[in-house]
Amino acid sequence: MARAKLAQAKTALAASEFDCWLLLTREGSDAAVPFLTGTGSVGPAAFLLFRDGTDEALVANFDVGHIASAGVMQSVRPYERGLREPLIARLREKGVRRIALNYAPDDALADGLTHGMYLWFMADAAEVPWQVGSAQALLAQVRGVKVAAEVERLRRACGTTVEIYEGVHRQMRSGQTEREVSMLFVREMESRRLVSGTADAFAGPMVMIPRIGMSHRNPTDARIRPGDMVIVDFSLVVDGYASDIARTFYCLRPGEIQAPAEVRRMFQASRDAIAAAVGALTPGRRGFEVDGVARATLSAAGYPDQPIHATGHQIGQRVHDGGTLLGPRWERYGQGPEGRIEAGMVFAIEPTILLAGDHSVLTEENVVVRPDGCERLSAWQEEIWLIR
Amino acid sequence: MARAKLAQAKTALAASEFDCWLLLTREGSDAAVPFLTGTGSVGPAAFLLFRDGTDEALVANFDVGHIASAGVMQSVRPYERGLREPLIARLREKGVRRIALNYAPDDALADGLTHGMYLWFMADAAEVPWQVGSAQALLAQVRGVKVAAEVERLRRACGTTVEIYEGVHRQMRSGQTEREVSMLFVREMESRRLVSGTADAFAGPMVMIPRIGMSHRNPTDARIRPGDMVIVDFSLVVDGYASDIARTFYCLRPGEIQAPAEVRRMFQASRDAIAAAVGALTPGRRGFEVDGVARATLSAAGYPDQPIHATGHQIGQRVHDGGTLLGPRWERYGQGPEGRIEAGMVFAIEPTILLAGDHSVLTEENVVVRPDGCERLSAWQEEIWLIR
Repeated sequence: MARAKLAQAKTALAASEFDCWLLLTREGSDAAVPFLTGTGSVGPAAFLLFRDGTDEALVANFDVGHIASAGVMQSVRPYERGLREPLIARLREKGVRRIALNYAPDDALADGLTHGMYLWFMADAAEVPWQVGSAQALLAQVRGVKVAAEVERLRRACGTTVEIYEGVHRQMRSGQTEREVSMLFVREMESRRLVSGTADAFAGPMVMIPRIGMSHRNPTDARIRPGDMVIVDFSLVVDGYASDIARTFYCLRPGEIQAPAEVRRMFQASRDAIAAAVGALTPGRRGFEVDGVARATLSAAGYPDQPIHATGHQIGQRVHDGGTLLGPRWERYGQGPEGRIEAGMVFAIEPTILLAGDHSVLTEENVVVRPDGCERLSAWQEEIWLIR
Repeated sequence: MARAKLAQAKTALAASEFDCWLLLTREGSDAAVPFLTGTGSVGPAAFLLFRDGTDEALVANFDVGHIASAGVMQSVRPYERGLREPLIARLREKGVRRIALNYAPDDALADGLTHGMYLWFMADAAEVPWQVGSAQALLAQVRGVKVAAEVERLRRACGTTVEIYEGVHRQMRSGQTEREVSMLFVREMESRRLVSGTADAFAGPMVMIPRIGMSHRNPTDARIRPGDMVIVDFSLVVDGYASDIARTFYCLRPGEIQAPAEVRRMFQASRDAIAAAVGALTPGRRGFEVDGVARATLSAAGYPDQPIHATGHQIGQRVHDGGTLLGPRWERYGQGPEGRIEAGMVFAIEPTILLAGDHSVLTEENVVVRPDGCERLSAWQEEIWLIR
């Protein structure tokens, strides 16, 4: 996989204004390094991609073994006491003029270079003949546009996620706590020896009764009671790739055979907004346009100013992946919403309806963009799921 | 735990020249944030500690719930569309003049601020009345000096590590491959539902037959044969704290009842170097002095220029923790070796003897510094362990 991504990175580099893409890392600080090179370092290390198609790693002597044995980099050279001198010498030798570095003020995924390592590298910048610039566009391209093997892994992650949802749904009962429902997911993950894509890989998903309060929070001991909605947002990692799928449930009151009309109407609005966004999700469109389509659908259905976050984001090795974001043009989203959709990007679409009262809807589906539209990576939620 | 660390951080801040310690993070980019605040953010977020002893978090609306429910920060305030404006306004309100940021050219653990977030924050620095500086000394202090509950977690991690070593030792046999031995550790971790402190939490430890080559590398299918040494370096996480303990084995030849004299002599030299380093490891000494003591011991025993890396490092939530390093004054170690030892620091000591031939020794023990010397966190390896 890393070999395919490294090749893709070099293609992107060759089409850019840079003649070297320099990844500086230590103790795993830049997540782009394992992504592009299939390996990492303990000591300070430089991974260099050159415009001429060659690549090399310059690493501490004790890091040579595992980086060489990963077999992805063409050349792995050790340094003994300090990285800076051999690195500068090598950049001079190669006649490098313009260097791409992994920093981006408004894109967490292209911002793996720490400020300290930047200062370390630029210490004598006045003396050297190169300019540096942000590798954001390169990384957005390589992270965003999946190779076929990546799409297959995501498809497996999505398929297993839906399978686990169905298994858990059969076990959900009125009276269970949020925490108990989350543990049902943990048991399903454990029996498959899989982990989640969230910060705590062993933890269960967010399980939220809107009556208790929404927004990212841990499951509580609050019990599901008749008339409650329940929202679950679950990310599962399969072979290093993370799904991100949410489902909305309703707990029937005595005598009810379906959710109340208002609840069904909300669900349908969110479901329609997903379909509308996916309909607009074609190569060449820009992120904010797709977000706008979902927003307009919700607004027309009577839910203005929803969702309160971006309608969709890319997924991949990380649950928030790639540069292009299906979001509004708000400061906190930086340039993400300006990005253009390309075939091979994989998105999670989640036009949440988040209201102050007891009712909210979060349904989230994952699709891959193809040249002529989108392909679903798993079955969608077509109606609200009931708890008895 | 985070509450105790946050209090410690404020004490360090009050003793510094800064009046605000500002942690800027998004998508978990700065590991110091969960360490000091017990929580983290998805969106861009600012965690502010003030000299007056107050603290607050300024976070995206969707991050408020889980950060508030962690219950560590005194105040959690949401922003709607962008962080920068309310952050700048708040810093002005508080009359902040000198801000500590988490960057350090030569200290990975104090370098959690990405270059992009730095640029984002400093965009209009010319207009604002504050200066920024590195929080390296603050973070080295707070990471390095453990509170009692942290030492207890490390003691449990070390105890369980040694217990697993003993269990695996009983199962080790001539003819097993490096990979098979590593899997013995994986099974012991799995049966205890524990993970390792290395980058791949589920992977087994490094298991190396020196004859096959040393330096950080993955276990291979090479088989242990009589006359081989075997080195294992294993880190185990218990309650979020990581041990780092190594053991050296020898596989007996037919008729042998102990390792050859040369092997025993090497092991003893390394064991003596640990004891010498630990003897020198007292509050007030500097890291390079302790490293020098271990080096002199190995050199006097006939192993000059060993180890080829630092003699010891701190452990904690990460397997390489804290600022002060027991290392030589080489560029790649930055200011780490200049640091002073303090009571409450916990070190892994590993004066490796790494030779080109079939024989190398790596034994590593973990100790906590007390006002009057060191306390062992687990039983040491007192002689080379035999494989039959």
